[in-house]
Amino acid sequence: MNQMTSRRSGGRAARRASRAAPLDDTLRPVRPGMEGGTLNVLTPAQIEKIHAAALEALDQIGLADAPQSGIDYMTAAGATLGGDGRLRFPRALVEDTLARANRGITLHGRDPAHDLRLSGTRVHYGTAGAAVHMVDIEGKQYRDSTLQDLHDAARIAETLENIHFLQRPMVARDIEDTCEMEVNSVYACCAGTTKHVGTSFSDPAHAREGIRLLHMIAGGEGAWRDRPFVSNSNCFVVPPMKFATESCQVMEACIEGGMPVLLLSAGMAGATAPSTVAGAIVQAVAECLAGLVYVNAVSPGHPAIFGTWPFGLDLRTGAMTGGSGEQALLSAGCAQMHRFYDLPGGAVGGIADSKLPDMQAGWEAMCSNVMAGLSGLNMVYEAAGMHASLLGFCHESLILGDDMIGQALRCVRGIEVDDETLALDQMREVCLGGPGHYLGTAATLGRMQADHVYPSLGDRTSPKEWAENGKPDLVDKARARKEAILATPSAARFNPMLDAEIRKAFKIHLPM
Amino acid sequence: MNQMTSRRSGGRAARRASRAAPLDDTLRPVRPGMEGGTLNVLTPAQIEKIHAAALEALDQIGLADAPQSGIDYMTAAGATLGGDGRLRFPRALVEDTLARANRGITLHGRDPAHDLRLSGTRVHYGTAGAAVHMVDIEGKQYRDSTLQDLHDAARIAETLENIHFLQRPMVARDIEDTCEMEVNSVYACCAGTTKHVGTSFSDPAHAREGIRLLHMIAGGEGAWRDRPFVSNSNCFVVPPMKFATESCQVMEACIEGGMPVLLLSAGMAGATAPSTVAGAIVQAVAECLAGLVYVNAVSPGHPAIFGTWPFGLDLRTGAMTGGSGEQALLSAGCAQMHRFYDLPGGAVGGIADSKLPDMQAGWEAMCSNVMAGLSGLNMVYEAAGMHASLLGFCHESLILGDDMIGQALRCVRGIEVDDETLALDQMREVCLGGPGHYLGTAATLGRMQADHVYPSLGDRTSPKEWAENGKPDLVDKARARKEAILATPSAARFNPMLDAEIRKAFKIHLPM
Repeated sequence: MNQMTSRRSGGRAARRASRAAPLDDTLRPVRPGMEGGTLNVLTPAQIEKIHAAALEALDQIGLADAPQSGIDYMTAAGATLGGDGRLRFPRALVEDTLARANRGITLHGRDPAHDLRLSGTRVHYGTAGAAVHMVDIEGKQYRDSTLQDLHDAARIAETLENIHFLQRPMVARDIEDTCEMEVNSVYACCAGTTKHVGTSFSDPAHAREGIRLLHMIAGGEGAWRDRPFVSNSNCFVVPPMKFATESCQVMEACIEGGMPVLLLSAGMAGATAPSTVAGAIVQAVAECLAGLVYVNAVSPGHPAIFGTWPFGLDLRTGAMTGGSGEQALLSAGCAQMHRFYDLPGGAVGGIADSKLPDMQAGWEAMCSNVMAGLSGLNMVYEAAGMHASLLGFCHESLILGDDMIGQALRCVRGIEVDDETLALDQMREVCLGGPGHYLGTAATLGRMQADHVYPSLGDRTSPKEWAENGKPDLVDKARARKEAILATPSAARFNPMLDAEIRKAFKIHLPM
Repeated sequence: MNQMTSRRSGGRAARRASRAAPLDDTLRPVRPGMEGGTLNVLTPAQIEKIHAAALEALDQIGLADAPQSGIDYMTAAGATLGGDGRLRFPRALVEDTLARANRGITLHGRDPAHDLRLSGTRVHYGTAGAAVHMVDIEGKQYRDSTLQDLHDAARIAETLENIHFLQRPMVARDIEDTCEMEVNSVYACCAGTTKHVGTSFSDPAHAREGIRLLHMIAGGEGAWRDRPFVSNSNCFVVPPMKFATESCQVMEACIEGGMPVLLLSAGMAGATAPSTVAGAIVQAVAECLAGLVYVNAVSPGHPAIFGTWPFGLDLRTGAMTGGSGEQALLSAGCAQMHRFYDLPGGAVGGIADSKLPDMQAGWEAMCSNVMAGLSGLNMVYEAAGMHASLLGFCHESLILGDDMIGQALRCVRGIEVDDETLALDQMREVCLGGPGHYLGTAATLGRMQADHVYPSLGDRTSPKEWAENGKPDLVDKARARKEAILATPSAARFNPMLDAEIRKAFKIHLPM
């Protein structure tokens, strides 16, 4: 094949420059909300079996530890409280909930251009997690993550085309008071990006404080409720099959405050969920169905994301692993269950077990990311930046993730087959008395922007050019881009008057 | 999620050691020939359109430049030679060939344990290519590849569980005489591995020389013909739609010599094939169908691999790119066409455009590798070690590719759904009065080897352990493994008497 790779010269710089202008949106080869669904790791019969097992688990095992308010809501809806304190869900209740749940929700961005419409197999990629470390590439160190790190992540995400939302990926460990930490996390994210933000609260009172801040950012409660641009990531269960009492109370506060909720069931296959892929999916589905009953019992039709997030475990060590093939299958299988229910859903992709953005990180993150997208997962959480099985977040990886996800999205877009793309006429013209190649055909030139994703930092030079360019290091390039992004003032920041008001009302730890 | 990742201590070394023993084959979580097919980037209607377009191209455009022998074979079978020198293939001829072609072939290993049975959606990964550079990791250099490099690649592949065959990945540029180079390539590969070998000849006389060597290695012509353990990679076309005259003559010599052939159509989308994914697939399919007619006209049922290898092109520069999403789609779409025809097929995966085994190389290689496997591609060529869009081969990447492909194969294996894996009984037991977790259940422990792929060099330690271990570098670990492999004598080497005979009969450049 080598003889075919020698055409690497001639007027390239000029051609590159002429094609570097930003693309009209309709010409972009990939975009948020492309439709997946070509990957089906489960057959229809397998899906039915998982569904039936989940229904049976809800009917016979049920969930313990609901707060009294939740017991009241759910028993009123038709759940039964057993003598063992477990709430059980008859099949009819679950089916009724499924029939009435909100199945086409919008996750708003503060900028409407970033609205995400969750339905069908529309795919979106973004960050998430609760990493406690920042990966410091220069020092090869894992250090405690800070509020500034979180704000910087938001600012970086704002600039990356293929990062469609920013769920808080790490914990601001430099703020001791939990309520202040959570409110400041909302501030730091929203001040950094106009894309949809996901966050998390540990106490209903904190949620109410956070929503008070959001009212100010939005310009009043009405504006907030019209376009809630922050969702709450609710670990509403402690798997296996127990409600997380306090987190449920937070969820009720969020529903009350008009905030979309992510019903997050994060079992670990082999520890808090069955070790088998199928079993872990059954339990996650059962738990999220219980959550869906809960949400709809509190407020019918409230926007909820079906968040089956089963994680893998390295059974040799008992440690979590998110970069495995088993993990990719867990999320791909969950995506199919979401499609089966026709519910907006999310799961994890993109996690690296590797500690640094190296080759392992690349293959781990791509495996689950591309499979999640091909499965038509609406929300691919933790898609970029996550290392050490979620313990560390890395700004450089987030930036490189933009290229990786662009490629995954190209695969999600798939193959168009029509008379033009089948290219029979072109083939005839080229071969029968034509030039014998397709380099200059109108079809080739006309489609070169709309059909092809070009990496931003990924290197496609020849070895010769690469050497001439000084053999640039990929991670160094990402660091340089990070520095350039962070050297530019944030376009998402609040106007100074609003910011002053916010700082009067809340103790904001981020410098002005 | 961070609170779930803290269980990383206690007796781990002992547990690891007890589980480090090699697995009984029936317990291995992945193996050659696992069945894919869960990914369908083309719909059945799209497949029919591609098939129809390919038939039309063969009927109306046909292929130029067949050698006279080929014209004789194919016109006798029903092809027509036009006044423009092009051979055209009526639909009936193609359909007839498809009906009678060999659809379940075995690619033998010199060791029968490595036989590959190509049929249905059985997936195998291995090397291939004609890289002209060796990637020297320590010096960050691209240098000319040598016969020793090729032999070392074979020796490394021999030790890697997830590299199922060794097609010659690089050219021995230290041998000037082409015939000697090609014969020595056969020697260097076969002396390094007992797995199936793929090679390439540029002249029928060289092929005959190579086959003479293979008779000696096999222990006679009969033994060779019983179990041909080397196949020929035949670039029998020069896309678009022209036979490669000399390569066709080589193919005839290989058929004559009992050697399976890979019908390799390597168009470049946008240069020698249409730029659209669908169009490039149409042309590759048409060309390979012509090749199939050719092979079956020469020798009905001769083992042939349907080698649709369309490559991507970076249209900004005109340079080849193999690490893109478009490339992954090209190969995944081709895999579906092979399934449609129920023919043994191969295409490319695993190519990195990156020059070194970095994060980009990881995501590029995994994207096409996992999609090829999920598509049920029988032979995933170029799956490991390939950099710089095929210009460079890297031993360390080959070694790391073993981990990457193990993970891809785990995804190919997919999700088992049955009463045991659904785990409802286990869930009941654990949740209702049980321990509340699955760590010690018989199902978890009993399946921990058979269900899970554990990386060999990939790192899953916690940041703390990683720091304690001195923050090992992934590529350094691969280099150490390479050195350990190459320090051990090759188990595949020929016995000294045979080797002496071979060296009397041929000028062998590899030292004894």
